[in-house]
Parts: sequence; structure tokens; C-alpha cells
Amino acid sequence: MIKRFADIECKTVFNKNIAQSQTKGEKEAKISYTKAYEPFLKGYNISLDVRGQKIDSFEFAKIFEKSSNINFFIGGAYGLEDKFLAKMDKVISLSDLTYAHKIAKVVLFEQIYRGLCIKANHPYHK
Amino acid sequence: MIKRFADIECKTVFNKNIAQSQTKGEKEAKISYTKAYEPFLKGYNISLDVRGQKIDSFEFAKIFEKSSNINFFIGGAYGLEDKFLAKMDKVISLSDLTYAHKIAKVVLFEQIYRGLCIKANHPYHK
Repeated sequence: MIKRFADIECKTVFNKNIAQSQTKGEKEAKISYTKAYEPFLKGYNISLDVRGQKIDSFEFAKIFEKSSNINFFIGGAYGLEDKFLAKMDKVISLSDLTYAHKIAKVVLFEQIYRGLCIKANHPYHK
Repeated sequence: MIKRFADIECKTVFNKNIAQSQTKGEKEAKISYTKAYEPFLKGYNISLDVRGQKIDSFEFAKIFEKSSNINFFIGGAYGLEDKFLAKMDKVISLSDLTYAHKIAKVVLFEQIYRGLCIKANHPYHK
């Protein structure tokens, strides 16, 4: 449904280094995500993090005015490293509730579709 | 997965009256949901509403200490009537973001599972 408005690609970056680091501890796990995600930093970068800004769907829609190349990063079980978050253009929190990775992805995809509908004045969001 | 911990039933109440009321306007739509949902009020009742309390997953888990019979109500496109919300034991907001009905249901189900895991000290939530 998003493809009506924009090109979208969903990359799952889970490598051996991340898998091994998960077993070592929080710090190691976060660093492994920074290493895996850093090559993808370009355009306008957004991370999902519990400490991020809480926005509504209309504010979310404004993201699509920022750039024509937007990346969303979702961290692992321990979240993302502060050093990585500092490189973001925006850090947002979906909810105070903790979501499983798959649920966060579903929510994020629906917000992207909803945001693009708002931007295009398509009636879906109403 | 929830059935490991509790009996759960998902009822979709969408009748002719709701369908007709939707086309008339916000007030009529909300009243039609009150009429359709009122017969299900028993035990501990919770509605999802944008004006509700924002809680994290640990606070959500505490809901299951309140009663052994808990109902969650999700409104239609216009939400629920104030009169109906006044009858609730708790009104919660999942997020500042607007979710499609299906997404709200997925998020709610995961929180119920997560909450029951927290209560049972099952490692899923970690």
C-alpha cells in the first residue's frame, strides 16, 4: 500500500556479530547494532527509542517533508547506543508500552502509510 | 500464546445500527457503539481512548491483578462516547499516534500476552 506513494525497502540486519554480542551483554549488543547500522546512515535518519519524542500521526506525517530519503532504525532487545542516537535527525518513541520488534515494525509501517496519506490528502487517515 | 495463561475471547461487535450510524455522524456513531457494547459490561472494564492514561507495560501488567474477568473495548473511527467512558474502571491510551483498528488490536493482544508474562515471571518481556 505504501508503494502507491513511495519506494520502501525493509532491511533486516542481523549478523553473526550481533548474535554473539547479544549473549555478552547490553553494551556489546548496542555497539554491534551501531556497527551494523552505520553504513546505512544517509538522508534523514530516525531511530525508534523509548526515550524519544512522542508525536501524533500529523507530526509523524511532517517527517516526509524533511527529505526524499528517510531511514528508520529499530534497535534490538536492548535498544540503540547513545552514540548512534546522537547521529540521528530525530528520535521518536512509539509508545510508553514495550512492543516486540515485529509489532513495532507493523506500527511503524502503518504510520508511514498513514503519514503519506495525510501528506497526499488521501482519506485513509480520517 | 495468551491461552497458556488465561481464557481470551475476541468479539467483533459490528451490527446494522453501527453501520447506519457511521454515515450519520460522530455523535450517532458513538451512541451506536455504547448501545452495542453496554451488554458486555461486567467485571473490570477498560476502554482504549486517545484521551486515556498512558502507561508502560509494567503498569499494564498490573491490570491483571484487578479482576479475573477483564474486558477491553476499542471504539470505532470516532472513538467512544463520554457517557460510556465514564462507566469504565480504566481508560488507557496506547500511543499519541492514531492506529487503525486492526493495529490497535495487535498491539493490545501483545500487551495482554506481555502483561501475563510479567505477572507469571515468564522471560518473554525481557
